[in-house]
Amino acid sequence: MEQINASIDVDKRLWAQDIAGSKAHCEMLVKQEIISGEDGDAILKGLDQIAGEIEGGTFEFKASLEDIHMNIESRLREIIGDAAGRLHTARSRNDQVATDFRLWCRDGINILIGKIEALQSTIETLTNTHKNDVMPGFTHLQPAQPVTLGTHLDAYWQMLERDKSRLEDAAARLNFSPLGAAAMAGTPFPIDRDATAKALGFEAPIPNTMDAVSDRDFVAEIAFVSALCGIHLSRLAEEIIIWSTPQFGFITLSDQWSTGSSIMPQKKNPDAAELVRGKTGRLNGNVVQVLTMLKGLPLTYNKDLQEDKEFVFDSVDTISLCLEAMDGMLASATFHTARMLETAEDGYTTATALADWLVMRLNMPFRDAHHVTGAIVKLAEDKGCKLDALDLSDMQAVEGRITDEIYSVLSIRKK
Amino acid sequence: MEQINASIDVDKRLWAQDIAGSKAHCEMLVKQEIISGEDGDAILKGLDQIAGEIEGGTFEFKASLEDIHMNIESRLREIIGDAAGRLHTARSRNDQVATDFRLWCRDGINILIGKIEALQSTIETLTNTHKNDVMPGFTHLQPAQPVTLGTHLDAYWQMLERDKSRLEDAAARLNFSPLGAAAMAGTPFPIDRDATAKALGFEAPIPNTMDAVSDRDFVAEIAFVSALCGIHLSRLAEEIIIWSTPQFGFITLSDQWSTGSSIMPQKKNPDAAELVRGKTGRLNGNVVQVLTMLKGLPLTYNKDLQEDKEFVFDSVDTISLCLEAMDGMLASATFHTARMLETAEDGYTTATALADWLVMRLNMPFRDAHHVTGAIVKLAEDKGCKLDALDLSDMQAVEGRITDEIYSVLSIRKK
Amino acid sequence: MEQINASIDVDKRLWAQDIAGSKAHCEMLVKQEIISGEDGDAILKGLDQIAGEIEGGTFEFKASLEDIHMNIESRLREIIGDAAGRLHTARSRNDQVATDFRLWCRDGINILIGKIEALQSTIETLTNTHKNDVMPGFTHLQPAQPVTLGTHLDAYWQMLERDKSRLEDAAARLNFSPLGAAAMAGTPFPIDRDATAKALGFEAPIPNTMDAVSDRDFVAEIAFVSALCGIHLSRLAEEIIIWSTPQFGFITLSDQWSTGSSIMPQKKNPDAAELVRGKTGRLNGNVVQVLTMLKGLPLTYNKDLQEDKEFVFDSVDTISLCLEAMDGMLASATFHTARMLETAEDGYTTATALADWLVMRLNMPFRDAHHVTGAIVKLAEDKGCKLDALDLSDMQAVEGRITDEIYSVLSIRKK
Amino acid sequence: MEQINASIDVDKRLWAQDIAGSKAHCEMLVKQEIISGEDGDAILKGLDQIAGEIEGGTFEFKASLEDIHMNIESRLREIIGDAAGRLHTARSRNDQVATDFRLWCRDGINILIGKIEALQSTIETLTNTHKNDVMPGFTHLQPAQPVTLGTHLDAYWQMLERDKSRLEDAAARLNFSPLGAAAMAGTPFPIDRDATAKALGFEAPIPNTMDAVSDRDFVAEIAFVSALCGIHLSRLAEEIIIWSTPQFGFITLSDQWSTGSSIMPQKKNPDAAELVRGKTGRLNGNVVQVLTMLKGLPLTYNKDLQEDKEFVFDSVDTISLCLEAMDGMLASATFHTARMLETAEDGYTTATALADWLVMRLNMPFRDAHHVTGAIVKLAEDKGCKLDALDLSDMQAVEGRITDEIYSVLSIRKK
Repeated sequence: MEQINASIDVDKRLWAQDIAGSKAHCEMLVKQEIISGEDGDAILKGLDQIAGEIEGGTFEFKASLEDIHMNIESRLREIIGDAAGRLHTARSRNDQVATDFRLWCRDGINILIGKIEALQSTIETLTNTHKNDVMPGFTHLQPAQPVTLGTHLDAYWQMLERDKSRLEDAAARLNFSPLGAAAMAGTPFPIDRDATAKALGFEAPIPNTMDAVSDRDFVAEIAFVSALCGIHLSRLAEEIIIWSTPQFGFITLSDQWSTGSSIMPQKKNPDAAELVRGKTGRLNGNVVQVLTMLKGLPLTYNKDLQEDKEFVFDSVDTISLCLEAMDGMLASATFHTARMLETAEDGYTTATALADWLVMRLNMPFRDAHHVTGAIVKLAEDKGCKLDALDLSDMQAVEGRITDEIYSVLSIRKK
Repeated sequence: MEQINASIDVDKRLWAQDIAGSKAHCEMLVKQEIISGEDGDAILKGLDQIAGEIEGGTFEFKASLEDIHMNIESRLREIIGDAAGRLHTARSRNDQVATDFRLWCRDGINILIGKIEALQSTIETLTNTHKNDVMPGFTHLQPAQPVTLGTHLDAYWQMLERDKSRLEDAAARLNFSPLGAAAMAGTPFPIDRDATAKALGFEAPIPNTMDAVSDRDFVAEIAFVSALCGIHLSRLAEEIIIWSTPQFGFITLSDQWSTGSSIMPQKKNPDAAELVRGKTGRLNGNVVQVLTMLKGLPLTYNKDLQEDKEFVFDSVDTISLCLEAMDGMLASATFHTARMLETAEDGYTTATALADWLVMRLNMPFRDAHHVTGAIVKLAEDKGCKLDALDLSDMQAVEGRITDEIYSVLSIRKK
Repeated sequence: MEQINASIDVDKRLWAQDIAGSKAHCEMLVKQEIISGEDGDAILKGLDQIAGEIEGGTFEFKASLEDIHMNIESRLREIIGDAAGRLHTARSRNDQVATDFRLWCRDGINILIGKIEALQSTIETLTNTHKNDVMPGFTHLQPAQPVTLGTHLDAYWQMLERDKSRLEDAAARLNFSPLGAAAMAGTPFPIDRDATAKALGFEAPIPNTMDAVSDRDFVAEIAFVSALCGIHLSRLAEEIIIWSTPQFGFITLSDQWSTGSSIMPQKKNPDAAELVRGKTGRLNGNVVQVLTMLKGLPLTYNKDLQEDKEFVFDSVDTISLCLEAMDGMLASATFHTARMLETAEDGYTTATALADWLVMRLNMPFRDAHHVTGAIVKLAEDKGCKLDALDLSDMQAVEGRITDEIYSVLSIRKK
Repeated sequence: MEQINASIDVDKRLWAQDIAGSKAHCEMLVKQEIISGEDGDAILKGLDQIAGEIEGGTFEFKASLEDIHMNIESRLREIIGDAAGRLHTARSRNDQVATDFRLWCRDGINILIGKIEALQSTIETLTNTHKNDVMPGFTHLQPAQPVTLGTHLDAYWQMLERDKSRLEDAAARLNFSPLGAAAMAGTPFPIDRDATAKALGFEAPIPNTMDAVSDRDFVAEIAFVSALCGIHLSRLAEEIIIWSTPQFGFITLSDQWSTGSSIMPQKKNPDAAELVRGKTGRLNGNVVQVLTMLKGLPLTYNKDLQEDKEFVFDSVDTISLCLEAMDGMLASATFHTARMLETAEDGYTTATALADWLVMRLNMPFRDAHHVTGAIVKLAEDKGCKLDALDLSDMQAVEGRITDEIYSVLSIRKK
């Protein structure tokens, strides 16, 4: 039973939030004259001492005390004696846990936003560097049209911007205070919920006390937003892996972000990119975990909810690590822009530009322009040459109205 | 191949959005003098005719034409001839599909918000009706403290309010226009992306053209928000199912929203609630579908994305149906408030209030107050009576300072 | 309510199984003298007529009759009158549905096994054809060691063999008869459960009547086995997509199993492979659907279970389509074995063989052999040549004991 | 990079399997005269010493050595010097890891089977004890027909029997040896794959060397089988939770397997059952993790696969803990059979038996029997009495042919 019931290994990460929440609650109790100033001072001092012990690594966490809250409470009693018991006045484990957890999640989101911004900054630098470096844009992993490496990388900047915006929305939505909801029905003590909410940086108290202790939407939302961010990174990771093959040769990862082989010194395995890709499994799994756990739970608190923290911690840690790894990989990678350009030229990727020229300049209907373009591409393919190496006369044999202005759209280098 | 490739059965639901998108594109092409006013008029008229045919049920969808876009395009050609081909100028299937799909999702979200508000309104009415009706508040499905039915139901109003807020965030985030991104690299035609974005009610064009055609975040977000809303409804559904048992007897569903048995006429099966609960499977599955599908996809368009629509359609339809069913069930149900009150009284649910009184009035430390309360509850249990039926003297034998003010917190009815 | 409750659109696929189950039940009722031979004959005839009508497309399915069972029952009454009512003697909707569904699943599994075997047969042919065609074996998508295309493809044969074995296990596990369990508690009629089980090809009756009507393990198992098979196909699909790039150039899909572009006639998009890869989303989602739906359901029948069929149907249909598509793609594809060989030679893939030779012939410790190999590969890289193009003297400069036997392991072509 | 790359915290659980695999490999190398008997002896002794150190808790695991294999290899070199290097002859990390992991999974499955059998044994005892104790059988959580508690509990025995059978199938399917596949392409050394397979208790070597190192089907299969077993336990857990409410009052958990409240000493919270129910989230999430991770991975080894172990370990640990908790809960619970019987009587659960009697004895068509039964149940309901408390004359007023034999089916107690 202890084995299935104890959560201290997981929830000890909430210690700082637990102490912050207790301090805010204690100060409010004193101000509302629910406990004496003396008791309040003792509690605040005791909590500060505990914070010091935990930071200093001298605090002893005990599984027999089940969770972080009991561990701190029990230590507080050791330090300040019976006054410790006053701290729990007008508060229940249910609103305490919910408060701690929301505070942690708010902090976690802020950390993630910082890492997203760091990666965006790296991408932005690369985007500027490569804003004129032409590469093939792919559809179906087939070269389709010339784009720039800058545009390609910037697409990931955009995805991350949405990830950030989702995190901000989640943070705003969770930033309400459960404190004062007690077990679920509030408390008869003359507490000041606005005061504790304000002290802890919450927007306001959660109005419905039953909702306050049973809501875990923010858990699901963080898990999801992390998973979707992980999916974005997996797409970039997949491209890094494919681009790292000798066949593509678009990118070389730094030694720091790849692993080698003593036997094949030229081989660089994109391990970090593969791990980022593989970790989508974990992130998607965490979404399923939360949604499954919450399914069909009657109000209010059920012990099932004990499973809520581990997976949010894991999602935040995982996506945080993936963001850092991707940042490191990109910042230290070498992009082979000459090879990219060459590949773009080989793939007849200016065919669309040719068709557009035919429509624009010759007022040809789209369908006809496609037909003419196809014939010209076929011609280049048969001759084994690039589009801009075709003779004008050859193209005019297909469509007489083509002029040498056509070369301005056929050549990538002038793009 | 046709079997695995065709999507018309699914994407024909996009017809209205496809026509709206084409009309906006056409008007812009005319204004920018990319196509002639004459061709533009013909196209607009043709599209209106097609809209009429589809609404009137006379339009023939053909699987051989693969998708909704080709079906409409092909019919347009039948109606107006070669000018139909001009519509596709400066546009690609990729930005067209992305535009249609975003428009549909925006509409879908609006419909869902309407249904959420309808359910909230029903809940609000019930909350007001039952704001003073006491029932047991449960933790671990055990009666714990008295609450009101109004508070209990309002907790669901709060969840729905967050669901609505998530939908609004999703709508704001998706409301940008892919039109003009063409296949992925933009177009050399002098288009006006702001104009089409504005005409279609989008906030602005999507800046990165590669992102414009490959982003499906909004799909994942709608699937997730629907799933979380479904989880909320599953919790309420679970409660309805449990409350409908003869053992609880808290609620009786109307005949309209339950099924009976000719053989046991008194039995009412909460089928609709069970279906709402069961449909969480489908909604969670759809989240996994989208996240799995997107994992590791290189830029830009890949055919995997064809699987994107069916599941958003399904999530929107499913949650829509669940919201309606829940609305109907609640609005027509009978709540047995007398039975709820009686159950609250049986469960010693005022024990917490008693402990709080001891702390407040006698300044007893929490731990002692718990101990005294436990002893008094035990006394009532041994006597087989409710807490407020205990003699004052019996309670004073446990703790001498208790006065008859205590009855004001022991009795639920006076609460 | 009708909208959320009706299942006829989904479960009409059970018609053949429903009729088979009813016929077996009817024959047993007659033999046990529970109903008269006359009634029995009428019922059997009526059921045959209905089967004919459904096959002939003249049967009218009505949503108002909710499900396939009521549709058939109601039609039977139209055809043979009141005797139709006798068919339901000693049977309930619960055991009837469970029987029909197991029969369908057994049939579905058999169809899937057939399609797996067809794909295996295609792979086997290719494996034989290419058993000596050398290609680079990849780790981390980097060329690592030479293998044959035959071995590579045979790895998928092996995966499919396990998929088949899982399906066979699932079929054996589900092949027990629910008939006779009635609603959940059996029936007082003197039925012969062994007889109906035998008549329907079941191994035996399900011993526990409550389990008989509430077990849906087979649904989850089929969903999972299909999903895992889909994962296998997604791996092959991913390889086909990568191999189809001009950069790899290992494979060209037939026109039948790829889509082209009028504008770029040389471009072949591996749409079918992408769809196979994308459909993993759907298959994984279906696993989640079933597991979520079943979570926490009390015994015995709950309406949640109505959601069980659609997803198994979808999983079986989807994996069936994917198997066929993969079969078609592989059978009609062109493998560019010369290009594969050339790529294997470029990647220094015989380095491991060189190291093994040093250990075997020179009794060098592994670590030293790796070191020497690395130096020789570096040499080749610096010279820009393949390993087997190095001079013996150059290699001997690194390690003096190397003899010209070394060329037998350096050259892939002699492998 | 080290942070994302190191796996030692997770894979150190493979130590016993790693040593067993290495010993089998070493003995084969000696027998095949690939390494000397002397080196072989040193290696075996060194490995035994390491096993002793790990068991004794004196072995120091180093994150800088990345994984369990390097940790053991490095320590072996410290103990026996350069001969340690010979152990890796004709073996690669890829086949080594795959071998260790399969051995662990085989062991894990055996442990799970043992725990399933223990729980089955507890259920069997209860089933025998309660084989005649009548309770209401539920559909839709509404009392429907009388069953026995024995039958109800035995339904879970049956589910567990299928879980066991799925584990056995999985064990048989994974029990093949990767050893000898080396990195993916086998090895030129004259190894004896049959010998190592046999020594490690495998059925045979895995025929395809590429499959040998990249197959992780067994991971997915264990995750799924554990999840489905978890779903079964969640159903039982849900029933325990509902049955523990004062409203149902069917069961009282022992103090050991529930948690109390000092303030409400009569309240027993079914925490363990709630945790079992909640842990379905984790188990379902793990299935998604594996399936997502494997999606679209090209052959052969990719670093994504490093994420494979943690989740299987977690699934095995979790389901193992849940099985034990359920065993403990059931073995120590008190079943209130008198209350169950009373509830069965209150719910008119013999109505079906009454209808069956009418069909059997009076040869009434089913539809009419249902109608008559409904009328009689209505009568009892109006009178507020049980079915067997109705007067014969009252029933005869509904259907004249009813005799007093009817009481034998109306009364549950005589059942």
